[in-house]
Amino acid sequence: MVFELSEIINYLGDSIESVKGEIDHIVIKYLKDPKEVDKHTLDWVNPLKKNKQEIAETTEAKAILVDSEVVYSQELQKKQKVLIYVNNPKICIALIANKFFDKKRQTGIHPSAMIDKEVQIGGNTYIGPNCILEKCIIGDNVQLHGNIFIYENVVVGNNVEIHAGTIIGNEAHNFVEDDNGKKVKFPHLGGVIIEDNVTIGAQSVISKGVLSNTVIGEGTKIAQLVFIGANNKIGINCAIRPNVMISGSVMIGDFSIIASSATIREQTNIGTNSFIGMGAVVTKNVPDNEIWVGNPARKLIK
Amino acid sequence: MVFELSEIINYLGDSIESVKGEIDHIVIKYLKDPKEVDKHTLDWVNPLKKNKQEIAETTEAKAILVDSEVVYSQELQKKQKVLIYVNNPKICIALIANKFFDKKRQTGIHPSAMIDKEVQIGGNTYIGPNCILEKCIIGDNVQLHGNIFIYENVVVGNNVEIHAGTIIGNEAHNFVEDDNGKKVKFPHLGGVIIEDNVTIGAQSVISKGVLSNTVIGEGTKIAQLVFIGANNKIGINCAIRPNVMISGSVMIGDFSIIASSATIREQTNIGTNSFIGMGAVVTKNVPDNEIWVGNPARKLIK
Amino acid sequence: MVFELSEIINYLGDSIESVKGEIDHIVIKYLKDPKEVDKHTLDWVNPLKKNKQEIAETTEAKAILVDSEVVYSQELQKKQKVLIYVNNPKICIALIANKFFDKKRQTGIHPSAMIDKEVQIGGNTYIGPNCILEKCIIGDNVQLHGNIFIYENVVVGNNVEIHAGTIIGNEAHNFVEDDNGKKVKFPHLGGVIIEDNVTIGAQSVISKGVLSNTVIGEGTKIAQLVFIGANNKIGINCAIRPNVMISGSVMIGDFSIIASSATIREQTNIGTNSFIGMGAVVTKNVPDNEIWVGNPARKLIK
Repeated sequence: MVFELSEIINYLGDSIESVKGEIDHIVIKYLKDPKEVDKHTLDWVNPLKKNKQEIAETTEAKAILVDSEVVYSQELQKKQKVLIYVNNPKICIALIANKFFDKKRQTGIHPSAMIDKEVQIGGNTYIGPNCILEKCIIGDNVQLHGNIFIYENVVVGNNVEIHAGTIIGNEAHNFVEDDNGKKVKFPHLGGVIIEDNVTIGAQSVISKGVLSNTVIGEGTKIAQLVFIGANNKIGINCAIRPNVMISGSVMIGDFSIIASSATIREQTNIGTNSFIGMGAVVTKNVPDNEIWVGNPARKLIK
Repeated sequence: MVFELSEIINYLGDSIESVKGEIDHIVIKYLKDPKEVDKHTLDWVNPLKKNKQEIAETTEAKAILVDSEVVYSQELQKKQKVLIYVNNPKICIALIANKFFDKKRQTGIHPSAMIDKEVQIGGNTYIGPNCILEKCIIGDNVQLHGNIFIYENVVVGNNVEIHAGTIIGNEAHNFVEDDNGKKVKFPHLGGVIIEDNVTIGAQSVISKGVLSNTVIGEGTKIAQLVFIGANNKIGINCAIRPNVMISGSVMIGDFSIIASSATIREQTNIGTNSFIGMGAVVTKNVPDNEIWVGNPARKLIK
Repeated sequence: MVFELSEIINYLGDSIESVKGEIDHIVIKYLKDPKEVDKHTLDWVNPLKKNKQEIAETTEAKAILVDSEVVYSQELQKKQKVLIYVNNPKICIALIANKFFDKKRQTGIHPSAMIDKEVQIGGNTYIGPNCILEKCIIGDNVQLHGNIFIYENVVVGNNVEIHAGTIIGNEAHNFVEDDNGKKVKFPHLGGVIIEDNVTIGAQSVISKGVLSNTVIGEGTKIAQLVFIGANNKIGINCAIRPNVMISGSVMIGDFSIIASSATIREQTNIGTNSFIGMGAVVTKNVPDNEIWVGNPARKLIK
């Protein structure tokens, strides 16, 4: 892939506050890890770094996305660097990565996919190899990478991306004991609703509800090897990180983060904008805007 | 689905102690979450609730399964409600859900399943799409949902249900270090025995034994994303909840519960009727009838 | 399987220090669990046991692999036992198990595997049923058991074994928040390099790097249901046990052990020859040669 820097600048458009230096004839071939940056890399300075000026002045790259705290110093001028000033270099580099460097998305249905005849599938959607879809509804611009099993009574919204190996709509572990300790299955009669713009990572499991639906809110991002139990109602724009285990009938407010390997007890409420720490074992309700960590989890007093 | 209430009452038969109210012309269409109950819902009062009378008197449902602590009050009579008295409403509603509302079970072998020619398969069994079965034995009335990989030397008993994506009979992590720290695989020459009436949830892994068999006892219910290591001997009617990790050569007594995300050290014995708490990290033997919690796990003194 | 003991002795060759007793006419049919040993079992005494002499003198087996601390006592002579003296009986029994008792390895490509036309595959390699390979490079003597999904930009070295259901090269959870808390995906443009002699257990997930490669070092053994995040650099001859969660951009030194269900924070460095305990939650860098345990993990002072 080879681009003129001017193409990228045009794409960013109004996100750019100003450009310093001569952009003509600069050719961009890569985004790279800081250690491997070369003259054909489009580099950027993370706004959270302390030594931003130093990073900009020492990179091998010719073109650098920066925020307003980086000065177009004599050093940078002498080296004929180009600084592209934006409000948030990290977002801009992500947008550029998606637009110019990411794999082209596919559409259509792979011939090995097995799809129930009553499935409804939206436009511009990709159903990858070995996907198995029972009776369900799939929105527009959906990407099902492959080897995904969707049980019946699942609704997948628009712009949803689901990575390989994930299972949606299974029955979770719900048994009633009789007088002899024998376990009778309580069947799951509900479904799963995945709202728009959700991403679900590889090898995760999202169970259907028992008598209501499990709901994953708009824009929420679920990672790999995550378990979401029956009847969960997860808010919008949450982040559920790898290896998280959320038991049944949990409610999670909007914009909350559940860090890796956390476990949440059944019938617990997690507030809006809350943060559950790595490996936390949550056994109580967590109010809005709080950070809870540890086993058992307690509020972090900073 | 539409049923006369009388059909359901006939099905429960001797489980019913008495019926109060006029059952004729009551039509049942649903089981529902308490918040969504309507007049065509068959409702029930969980025996563990404190406000059972209130629940019965305020539900929109016409027919309610209750235990003997709920009184057929004037309020209930006035509203022409029907109370169906049973010993355990929760078990009865599970039985009704299975009989009247659950998806019909399938039988037969999906054409995409790949089955070794020496596999033995019992009657009335379902082998779903993309299942891969090496040389193994599968009992009667078994349900393999789909995308299940069974390695050779596995025996699956009768009435076993295995959800999508699960792997049975793989070799676990068992390496011997030579003098240079290089790891030599110790091959697993044993097998897996899944006894009757076991359920295994989606995306779980049950490894074969090294020189003996891994055994899952009769009626035990294993959840999703669970790892069962080599040589485990798990008793009857146990519950192994989601994301549990049980290392190799662990013995678990009958009727024990291993709660979500618990981890159990290799060569540990867990007693009968024990309870291992959510997220517990068990490094020692646990006696019968005890509750252990925490990291590392310790006996809970109540 | 039936072998003359002499065949096995020939195979061990120079690993044998001496043999005591009469080896003729001894027939070996099995390796077995200590409780099930019979006269046709080749038995061995674990060098770590305290009662080695007792184990040797009471086993039903006729032939026993031992180290030099076991004496060829009158009891053993009277019972006409054969002692095969080796430096490390555990390694020797593993080598014998691999050579004489393990399932024969397969080669070739199963017809149900779906392989991109640009994939390069080495010699003597097996690609099992329902494997899906995007554009990647696969070495010699590789075993892909089945139902494995390999995304593009993955290199698998020689003598690598990957168990069923595993996913390599997926994009992990990497999102940048815009000013409204909306999450923009940062696409993963790197790859995965699996070096020679690596084993990866069933149902694991190894994510590609974002701007560099994720690397699994030579001889490292990864277990089941493990998550390896983007950009990880894992050293040689490490052991990563079941249900481990390693976030992105983690470096792990050579010969380190990450015990079951441990969780490691992003951008953490774990030293060489370190040991992270079962269920540990590592939030800081761990120096070489240290043992860290607990949640949060701390150095174990012995």
